[in-house]
Amino acid sequence: MTFPQVSQTYKDPYNYPEGIAFQEGQYLLMKDAKVSVLDWGFLHSDATYDTVHVWDGAFFRLDLHLDRFFAGLEKLHMSIPFDRSQVADILANCVALSGHRNAYVEMICTRGGSPSFSRDPRDAANRFIAFAVPYGSVANAAQMERGLRIAISDVVRIPPKSVDPSIKNYHWLDLVRGLYDAFDRDAETALLLDTDGNIAEGPGFNVFAVKGGSLRTPQFGVLPGITRRTVFDLCTMLDIDVGVGNVSPDALKTADEVFITSTAGGIMPVSSVDETRIGNGRPGPVTGKIKALYWDMHKDPTWSTVVAFPEDVRGASSRPM
Amino acid sequence: MTFPQVSQTYKDPYNYPEGIAFQEGQYLLMKDAKVSVLDWGFLHSDATYDTVHVWDGAFFRLDLHLDRFFAGLEKLHMSIPFDRSQVADILANCVALSGHRNAYVEMICTRGGSPSFSRDPRDAANRFIAFAVPYGSVANAAQMERGLRIAISDVVRIPPKSVDPSIKNYHWLDLVRGLYDAFDRDAETALLLDTDGNIAEGPGFNVFAVKGGSLRTPQFGVLPGITRRTVFDLCTMLDIDVGVGNVSPDALKTADEVFITSTAGGIMPVSSVDETRIGNGRPGPVTGKIKALYWDMHKDPTWSTVVAFPEDVRGASSRPM
Repeated sequence: MTFPQVSQTYKDPYNYPEGIAFQEGQYLLMKDAKVSVLDWGFLHSDATYDTVHVWDGAFFRLDLHLDRFFAGLEKLHMSIPFDRSQVADILANCVALSGHRNAYVEMICTRGGSPSFSRDPRDAANRFIAFAVPYGSVANAAQMERGLRIAISDVVRIPPKSVDPSIKNYHWLDLVRGLYDAFDRDAETALLLDTDGNIAEGPGFNVFAVKGGSLRTPQFGVLPGITRRTVFDLCTMLDIDVGVGNVSPDALKTADEVFITSTAGGIMPVSSVDETRIGNGRPGPVTGKIKALYWDMHKDPTWSTVVAFPEDVRGASSRPM
Repeated sequence: MTFPQVSQTYKDPYNYPEGIAFQEGQYLLMKDAKVSVLDWGFLHSDATYDTVHVWDGAFFRLDLHLDRFFAGLEKLHMSIPFDRSQVADILANCVALSGHRNAYVEMICTRGGSPSFSRDPRDAANRFIAFAVPYGSVANAAQMERGLRIAISDVVRIPPKSVDPSIKNYHWLDLVRGLYDAFDRDAETALLLDTDGNIAEGPGFNVFAVKGGSLRTPQFGVLPGITRRTVFDLCTMLDIDVGVGNVSPDALKTADEVFITSTAGGIMPVSSVDETRIGNGRPGPVTGKIKALYWDMHKDPTWSTVVAFPEDVRGASSRPM
């Protein structure tokens, strides 16, 4: 009888996107950014995070993302050895070192673990991770042009009585099941319901219905998205009426326009919900107006934070960590 | 202006429990067993797993754990390049190489990822991980002796309409919140409610109430635990009546005995629920009888699978992987 040998190093056969991560004071290539399989952030999804994007070399609304991340830490009884400005510096370093002018940037805190593998979360040393990879979108270029085909799943989004949706979290098995339901029905993404049968949210996005020139978005059981909040702000600037409340499946299907919002893609038009064509089946004018202003505002210094890249900085040098 | 350097290797400052893991054909020390931060098993908790224990050198009811794990894979549209007997061999190798005669053994499948960081789960290459670490228990030795102090949280366990509880999963933020609620109330662990206000389950365990010699355990919205199922089997052997159905908080508090069940600890007595002392505040006779048979059955070959350890095997040798 023979036993296998224990390898002294792990040979990773996978390829990863180009980017830079930060863990424990070290900046790493994405292929080296890993979490212990014993971290409760993995084994119990006991973690919170936030995602901010960089467009044309500048963070968009970074302050709001930092607000939400630090609020989540407190609600989960977690702490990290960095304050807001230090986290902002780490994120900027990840982006600068990655060279990505359009980046998807994530900050994460996991419960961590203890050498004894204790199940008591108070025994764990929390761990902070950040990374920057190329910007990604929920909708691809063709879908942005023609609008997404979306299906309403009968899966109920994990309710607030179970998990506080204001803590941005990785509990996605309901959303993943919704996605597979949508694929079975020849749709491209999904919306889940709340516990009352109204529309909640989809995998990584909020949804808006436009009817008679007014906007409405679900209130209950959804992540208070930063892009959703940005739509409220843009509507104030555009003098468009926007309301928060229940949105039934029927209300969504009879809307003049429907769009979804996410840091990953911004304002994305929807052309059909289940079998129902929305409006004339093309992205509508209100969606277009909000989307245009959304991207215009990326150049406004009130909502953006410019990242200094090594190649922009005269005499830039690396310092050893 | 200076930028930090990118490190070519990650220096991990943490200590991990002794044990052996398996990833991608390689057996590794626990400190080297890691998941990419980009794996959807981490970023979306899009994963399933099972935990089996080894006691005195033998797996306990390994077949049932493999059944549940493979059923979960299918429900999540995941696949691994190993069949049941290959997974059993990998788990046995992890245990044998770890040297742990009493071990906590986990098999995991994550959604994985794609080089493009695609959000479509169908684009991901699923990843299988296994590990063996020292046996751990929900209750420590003192708590086993005197019974656990448990609190009923008002958090509702993630309902089946959101996540199918028969797919063993890492969605624990509700359970973690319940734990902190319990700590605030000077209890040691927590029970969560179902959507109707009845008792569901706790962090990693099912619960049983004993009343007038009969057992009852919640039916709705709970993981169908292997130790729970084993209690049903033991009750048949002991000619004890056991029922599955709603268990209200009041029914639990007025029970003669209460115990919890988990692969991590087996049959564990509860001495108080909230402010209420259960029975005479000591582990009761029915709990004791079931617990004794539970451990006796670990020696029965019908429910156990002996692991061959290198030191047991004459002429054992390692072969390069």
